[in-house]
Amino acid sequence: MTALRLHPDRALPAEPGTRAVARTIYRQTAELPLLCLHGHVPVETFSRNLPFEDPARLIVVPDHYVTRMLVSQGVRPEDLGLAPRDGGEYERDPRRIWRVFCENWHLFRGTPSRFWLEHEFAEVLGVGVQPSAGTADEIYEHIVHRIGEADFRPLELLKKFRIELLATTDAATDSLSEHGALSGISDSVRIVPTFRPDVLMHPAGPDWSWHVNLLGEVTGIDTGDLRGFLRAVQDRRRAFVRAGALACDHGHLSPRIERLDPEEAQRLFDQALVGSPGPGAAAALESHLLFEQAAMAREDGLVMQLHTGVLRNHDSDWYRRFGPDTGFDIPVAGEFTRSLRPLLEAFGHDPAFRLVLFTVDETVYSRELAPLAGAYPAVRLGAPWWFLDSPEQMLRFRRSATETAGFYNTSGFVDDTRALLSIPARHDLARRVDAAHLARLVTEHRLGEDEAVRTAIDLAYNIPRSVYRCP
Amino acid sequence: MTALRLHPDRALPAEPGTRAVARTIYRQTAELPLLCLHGHVPVETFSRNLPFEDPARLIVVPDHYVTRMLVSQGVRPEDLGLAPRDGGEYERDPRRIWRVFCENWHLFRGTPSRFWLEHEFAEVLGVGVQPSAGTADEIYEHIVHRIGEADFRPLELLKKFRIELLATTDAATDSLSEHGALSGISDSVRIVPTFRPDVLMHPAGPDWSWHVNLLGEVTGIDTGDLRGFLRAVQDRRRAFVRAGALACDHGHLSPRIERLDPEEAQRLFDQALVGSPGPGAAAALESHLLFEQAAMAREDGLVMQLHTGVLRNHDSDWYRRFGPDTGFDIPVAGEFTRSLRPLLEAFGHDPAFRLVLFTVDETVYSRELAPLAGAYPAVRLGAPWWFLDSPEQMLRFRRSATETAGFYNTSGFVDDTRALLSIPARHDLARRVDAAHLARLVTEHRLGEDEAVRTAIDLAYNIPRSVYRCP
Amino acid sequence: MTALRLHPDRALPAEPGTRAVARTIYRQTAELPLLCLHGHVPVETFSRNLPFEDPARLIVVPDHYVTRMLVSQGVRPEDLGLAPRDGGEYERDPRRIWRVFCENWHLFRGTPSRFWLEHEFAEVLGVGVQPSAGTADEIYEHIVHRIGEADFRPLELLKKFRIELLATTDAATDSLSEHGALSGISDSVRIVPTFRPDVLMHPAGPDWSWHVNLLGEVTGIDTGDLRGFLRAVQDRRRAFVRAGALACDHGHLSPRIERLDPEEAQRLFDQALVGSPGPGAAAALESHLLFEQAAMAREDGLVMQLHTGVLRNHDSDWYRRFGPDTGFDIPVAGEFTRSLRPLLEAFGHDPAFRLVLFTVDETVYSRELAPLAGAYPAVRLGAPWWFLDSPEQMLRFRRSATETAGFYNTSGFVDDTRALLSIPARHDLARRVDAAHLARLVTEHRLGEDEAVRTAIDLAYNIPRSVYRCP
Repeated sequence: MTALRLHPDRALPAEPGTRAVARTIYRQTAELPLLCLHGHVPVETFSRNLPFEDPARLIVVPDHYVTRMLVSQGVRPEDLGLAPRDGGEYERDPRRIWRVFCENWHLFRGTPSRFWLEHEFAEVLGVGVQPSAGTADEIYEHIVHRIGEADFRPLELLKKFRIELLATTDAATDSLSEHGALSGISDSVRIVPTFRPDVLMHPAGPDWSWHVNLLGEVTGIDTGDLRGFLRAVQDRRRAFVRAGALACDHGHLSPRIERLDPEEAQRLFDQALVGSPGPGAAAALESHLLFEQAAMAREDGLVMQLHTGVLRNHDSDWYRRFGPDTGFDIPVAGEFTRSLRPLLEAFGHDPAFRLVLFTVDETVYSRELAPLAGAYPAVRLGAPWWFLDSPEQMLRFRRSATETAGFYNTSGFVDDTRALLSIPARHDLARRVDAAHLARLVTEHRLGEDEAVRTAIDLAYNIPRSVYRCP
Repeated sequence: MTALRLHPDRALPAEPGTRAVARTIYRQTAELPLLCLHGHVPVETFSRNLPFEDPARLIVVPDHYVTRMLVSQGVRPEDLGLAPRDGGEYERDPRRIWRVFCENWHLFRGTPSRFWLEHEFAEVLGVGVQPSAGTADEIYEHIVHRIGEADFRPLELLKKFRIELLATTDAATDSLSEHGALSGISDSVRIVPTFRPDVLMHPAGPDWSWHVNLLGEVTGIDTGDLRGFLRAVQDRRRAFVRAGALACDHGHLSPRIERLDPEEAQRLFDQALVGSPGPGAAAALESHLLFEQAAMAREDGLVMQLHTGVLRNHDSDWYRRFGPDTGFDIPVAGEFTRSLRPLLEAFGHDPAFRLVLFTVDETVYSRELAPLAGAYPAVRLGAPWWFLDSPEQMLRFRRSATETAGFYNTSGFVDDTRALLSIPARHDLARRVDAAHLARLVTEHRLGEDEAVRTAIDLAYNIPRSVYRCP
Repeated sequence: MTALRLHPDRALPAEPGTRAVARTIYRQTAELPLLCLHGHVPVETFSRNLPFEDPARLIVVPDHYVTRMLVSQGVRPEDLGLAPRDGGEYERDPRRIWRVFCENWHLFRGTPSRFWLEHEFAEVLGVGVQPSAGTADEIYEHIVHRIGEADFRPLELLKKFRIELLATTDAATDSLSEHGALSGISDSVRIVPTFRPDVLMHPAGPDWSWHVNLLGEVTGIDTGDLRGFLRAVQDRRRAFVRAGALACDHGHLSPRIERLDPEEAQRLFDQALVGSPGPGAAAALESHLLFEQAAMAREDGLVMQLHTGVLRNHDSDWYRRFGPDTGFDIPVAGEFTRSLRPLLEAFGHDPAFRLVLFTVDETVYSRELAPLAGAYPAVRLGAPWWFLDSPEQMLRFRRSATETAGFYNTSGFVDDTRALLSIPARHDLARRVDAAHLARLVTEHRLGEDEAVRTAIDLAYNIPRSVYRCP
């Protein structure tokens, strides 16, 4: 049985002189409130504020970082509680799922999942031993007990985590009633929606025309032609703004954003509505719709977040059996310089427009994203995302992007997670890595310690507040 | 005259705390046996077990890492003993070739060749001075003496190097008689063939139809149509399996692997046999043949190794004069996410199928290869290959790939060399770099030291055994 | 008010053991003369040798690294003294421009601009406090005083900076009369032109045919057909050689260099002269013209420098308002292996031809450029350029390129700047980073300290002398 303890200097540089400076810097940011400006915890988690079900459904089943790693080493997805859509059998006993996870704990060595999970165990759940076959049951019981306690409800956790603001992600057609129900629930935390119209923006996606119809029903606007469709989208954006939204969010394979000739756009829209458009036509229309979103963002002030470069559902058969967001999304190479040119030529200098760019291709940081963010006033460089949200990658991000973009053209940390318990771990790790990077600048005499501390505080709190225009 | 001595801490991190941990980790793997699961030392080296010819032909002439570097700085290839295929003059005096090499020793500063060669000099050959114009003759004499000693025969070296298993690389049409002659030669080392059908898999390659015919002759199966061809290939795979082969190996420019419609495939095969197919047709057929190899691998259990992304014989005139594998192979950008999709959708979850992926484009580690290996059970991420088999690159590999793939979806070290004397140096360097990476995780409190040691042992020995399904 | 002082160990590694070695190495190169083999300070700066105008026009207005960063954070370009081409208003008071710059000094934290500017302030201008709103006026006055001193004229600065040779960049049609006026101005510094025919090499560029006509007028050769055009270009190259030029320099989006069939080339040339050619035709002709330049370089011995991969004037409207070279040039992904193949197959082994390759895409170092430079004798790998000319990137360059290319296939440092005052800072930083890289090789026992020192001296002085064939 091996003890699980968090070392106060974890993720700080080993070299003693640099570590001492990193500690000093980190200490100034460690207790700052958290701004969770983009994430995927469902609003119902808070509006219902129910206790969590069991350890497996809290930690294992919904976390695709965890399940994909186990699957990659031969564990059957059904044994992890993933329910086949065709109604096939799967493990329903959380204790057994938990055991499989604990037995394979060594697979997570050197991964950020290990880092986050240790933090959750030690700080949030009070687990003091490393998972293993021998400790699986003991830990399970411990967590069952812990999640039954009154202070372990979602809203109470937000408070405990010092979360000041949390943005959920919501479908464009969402009624926002759950958000309404939340208004004024706490004086310490503010929960706001984020406008995510992806299903309306992918003309080649499954059920696109169904979603277009639904939008028409929700808004009472005829979405049968492009003009009506856009007016209806704008209507929903305004509803989100009224509900406190700060941002919209867009997930696309390609960052190509380009306005079509209006008649051409209408023609492609009509074609897409009646049948399945060819891939070229669908991509052109998608690119045009994104441009229109940018034009609306410029008017309504929602910060435009762009997440691109992930080929979703790489394994079609897995997708048919287990659905999306279950570990089989794989990155592709990114191209931003040419793809964003039409958009940036149109709005790149507009003070009302703000574009936050995310990538899963680390090669574009120094080559494209930092140069773009270091020139256009509208552009900010989002925090390392998804596969890049890890100690090595976050450090590489600072080392690759800062020299050209500076610190002040980056967005500050964005956790982008659906795992509520991991939020403090993720912010804490980002602050540690920023402290590590800044400490090296200090010990290599490239920046004064006082300026490093001020920069760290800005990165942790002031910059995200300002980039997302928090009220 | 400068002494040549190996420092016990070479390639370990300089920071004293991290070095101490790295030493502890390295000590646990330094003496483990070597598994040489993919390499290019010809089987005849062992079946004949003759003494080596001379220092130049042992160290300089056949090593394209060495000759290309000298050529790049203006040395004439003929002066390095490279024989022009047109029968032109070239240096035959090994002592003169050796002298050119020693005079240019400074060119190798900071390269892995320098690291390997120093190891060979110090540990294998007992040379105690740095090469230079002044020491060339002395070292030459020393090596001549050393390679004449009875314990310096290839089979004796395998023992001395603690090599437990060594896989050669063999043409699909090879009779395997030399391997037969080797069976039972030693109780400490096992030498097995590897199935390498490249010349049969490149319809646009030189003499493809000649090789197809040869395959027909060797197997007694009519290879004049695609079905017969594939049956004959399968026949050879089975012969390799019977001879103890663990793996097949495939070298292609592109990792595109996709099954064609059977009639289309037959049509392209016919077309390729009678004349030269267009580049598109040849590439499609190549991609199809690779898919068929994967399907066979799934049945016969040979681990499928895929080496892609090198544009061979970049300089056509050099190729005409000096042939292949002489230093003019240059990498190109890789793309795996889309290229491997059809294959992984077909066999990516099949427990009988195993695919080990190698790249010379380091940008795909974090973007594509680690995500693929961290999801599909069939995929393992091969060790850094060729230009990437060096201290900086191996460290970058661990830092780029581990966070997403974990340690256990990588293959462990694969030496892939034709330079027998360099094998221990290469494995030793890999173990040192893994110790360095793991030590940093320990001193940054991201992993316990006990777990780091266990991981290092797994990487050095248990993982390659398991990935290549060693008996 | 915060003091501004340069630490003697700046940019050296923090780990004490490695720093000590780095110091030893750096000390051996710190005082070596500077070779400025490619740069953009106009020759008139020296031939006229006038005092500088004012602090803003010396430090802020012409430096696109500085202005783009301020613009990216919302400062209006007009407020930085950038003059709109349409005659619009802009700030003409240097004191106000200076104040904006000082107030935003924090934006440069962690950037190379900060590093260079601190060096200029401390070493060249004698400024002892950090810029800020509170110190803006004081620093302004100080600099006004300093630039009025007799020893602050350009030619005196060259001497003070220990610059031995400085190459300017000059249009192909330049009369070179200013260079003539300079001959024999100093026994310590040599100022030579560089042949830069870009406007003649971009058939799709603005005013191409106007430039072709001008070339005809300047040379007295009919440039109305391709032959005459090439003869006229050759004529100008020879004039540059006579004026002491060592190199030519070429800036292109793509490094594709391929000779066309002569009739096809003539046809495309004719077509381009009379109207605007299609993008495919223009690119093919551009590629052909570059090939012809290489052929000429092989004859006249000018070292061919190739700068590719920057999409110039990304924002068309900005370009219309403020012109080129003002911060809106953005990199794109590079491809060299296939692009350079025709050229290298033709001249890659020719001892008379030398090609120095620059990139703004760091991913090509290990994948393409180092393998090419480590094979072809004609190729050298240029110093990290533009966005990559920074501490992190220069270190990454050495770590990525050296293992395959070695040190001796790189070019040594090339400052490539139009900011005269920053030249010593840039060379100093490169020497520090090389010392840092070499020191790590020493403390990790990968290279002896004596060899590291010799390598550092070669990189700082002997290699650039030799690569550029300095007389």
